[in-house]
Amino acid sequence: MSLPKRRISKAIQIGSVTVGGGAPVVVQSMTKTDTCDIKATIAQIKQLADCGCEIVRLAVPDAEAADALPQIKKRVKVPLVADIHFDYRLALAAIKAGMDGLRINPGNIGEPERVRKLALAAKERGVPIRIGVNAGSLPKKADKKLSVPDRMVAAAMEQVDLLESLDFDLIKISLKAFDVPTTIEAYKKIARKVPYPLHIGITEAGTPRTGVIRSAVGIGTLLYLGIGDTIRVSLTANPCEEVAAAYEVLKSLNLRQRGPVLVSCPTCGRTEVDIVTLAGQVEARMAKIDRPIKVAVMGCVVNGPGEAKDADVGIACGKGRGVIFRKGAQVAVVAEADFLESLMNEVERV
Amino acid sequence: MSLPKRRISKAIQIGSVTVGGGAPVVVQSMTKTDTCDIKATIAQIKQLADCGCEIVRLAVPDAEAADALPQIKKRVKVPLVADIHFDYRLALAAIKAGMDGLRINPGNIGEPERVRKLALAAKERGVPIRIGVNAGSLPKKADKKLSVPDRMVAAAMEQVDLLESLDFDLIKISLKAFDVPTTIEAYKKIARKVPYPLHIGITEAGTPRTGVIRSAVGIGTLLYLGIGDTIRVSLTANPCEEVAAAYEVLKSLNLRQRGPVLVSCPTCGRTEVDIVTLAGQVEARMAKIDRPIKVAVMGCVVNGPGEAKDADVGIACGKGRGVIFRKGAQVAVVAEADFLESLMNEVERV
Repeated sequence: MSLPKRRISKAIQIGSVTVGGGAPVVVQSMTKTDTCDIKATIAQIKQLADCGCEIVRLAVPDAEAADALPQIKKRVKVPLVADIHFDYRLALAAIKAGMDGLRINPGNIGEPERVRKLALAAKERGVPIRIGVNAGSLPKKADKKLSVPDRMVAAAMEQVDLLESLDFDLIKISLKAFDVPTTIEAYKKIARKVPYPLHIGITEAGTPRTGVIRSAVGIGTLLYLGIGDTIRVSLTANPCEEVAAAYEVLKSLNLRQRGPVLVSCPTCGRTEVDIVTLAGQVEARMAKIDRPIKVAVMGCVVNGPGEAKDADVGIACGKGRGVIFRKGAQVAVVAEADFLESLMNEVERV
Repeated sequence: MSLPKRRISKAIQIGSVTVGGGAPVVVQSMTKTDTCDIKATIAQIKQLADCGCEIVRLAVPDAEAADALPQIKKRVKVPLVADIHFDYRLALAAIKAGMDGLRINPGNIGEPERVRKLALAAKERGVPIRIGVNAGSLPKKADKKLSVPDRMVAAAMEQVDLLESLDFDLIKISLKAFDVPTTIEAYKKIARKVPYPLHIGITEAGTPRTGVIRSAVGIGTLLYLGIGDTIRVSLTANPCEEVAAAYEVLKSLNLRQRGPVLVSCPTCGRTEVDIVTLAGQVEARMAKIDRPIKVAVMGCVVNGPGEAKDADVGIACGKGRGVIFRKGAQVAVVAEADFLESLMNEVERV
């Protein structure tokens, strides 16, 4: 089933990747290497591209990192975005280095005059700028009487107005907070105010155990509401875990397809086989597959095939024997020792 | 920040636990032991209660399982729900055994006459019945021209009408599918039709890696929309993992508090310390805490304290030294070797 209507934003290009304008929701992440370590950074960018990351962001904290950008850019194909705090001159250097996009934080980039210089340079090269507002680092002069979402929106709108006054409209906006309702409220408000594409995410969401849930709730709800053109799941973990989680969010809403979807029952007092182990093995074996396929591992011969009839292929396991099915129809009966291999053979065939 | 307005449903009692009527969203799970194995089932129920599960459901697939219920019920305090498919006589036995609630699947419980007998027995004892519709096992006579959500709603409404005609209103409803947009659509429709509390979840969601994300997106979106009085996260895993995930969903929307909330930054090219390891250690050390506390682990001395100023206590780590802060204010500077212990000492103090 498809989602309610999506907000259609103005499309921008981050290198070869279209963000907004009804394009598929783009998955992005960020390198966690020292940007000055050119070799490690290139390796991580390539690893990210391999696992499906479509835009890679790099922190550019100082001149040395900015100096590394041209060499990094030359060696990778995936579009790159430079993440800049405090020093607009680093952003100018990033544009010069051929970066495909910039991210600035209105809370710490400083004087409008600096943003103006940046916009002119970005415009010349057609480089989009993300106005990346973070609830934890709002501009100091923000009106304290406003709610946090309103202060976030105001911080973004000030930069939007400034960029628009310079006839610059290659704009993308993010409004991230750790608090999910705050984040959703801020995005809902900005979505009504501007035509620009939105980068969505929950900031400092945490570890793979908890941050993934917080991110899924926040990003998932926004996407359900039709909001969001590109997403990043922020996790305290290897960035490929962020990309995998991002695709799971998108797959759960039928917004993107990538690799297998595993349907597996939670097991209950009716289950007579170790489904937890089997599902784990199937998941591990399918990790290499990147074509979309829906596979079911069910713990009940009676209900299994029916409950998972949407699956391309599945197994319903009873004591001693299991039923292999395709689209709900039985294709074979197999012995318990052969559950894994029989299912994987069937997966290979599909 | 709080959520938009919640749907207020009619309250029912599952034993001592109130579901609906504006009560806090209740966390439930299901035993995965063989119900006939009384000792193992009691142990798992107690384990579930210890990890915060507020209602425990048990599969009752046959007469032997039904016979085990009185002994199980006697030995545990948490309210119990009997999950019945196909045979309404097992449901009658479960009521007799003192179960606090029943779940039946309209797709396979059979003749209205049987449901009628059940309702009369349940009414006499004040035992609520959940009408648990599953997209994969809809009644065979369901109108194929309708959409799946509409068929799910129709299946539930048929039972609702039947129960109401018997003046039975201790009703709870669930409409679960693996497909998230289908599930959300079905719940949105039923929420407008009936006053009863809703049990929400995504069925056969999968393993802890992917199922947790699918469940968080589906359950989280519904809760954001104000729908849902009790939740179950279905995972192919130990049921305590379901309970932990359920609380993370509720905590992310500020609907419940339980144990620590960990704010941790995803790290980036600016990070000079191994935050992934530190955050993992902090998470492990905090696993025993069940009082609410917000703890931050940040990889940046400059941005850290500000970005996590909502945290009760936190650490912002730079090379060689870190800053311990409380509510954004610095309270100590500590050496890298002492990061973990200093932070945990501060957590103890709060």
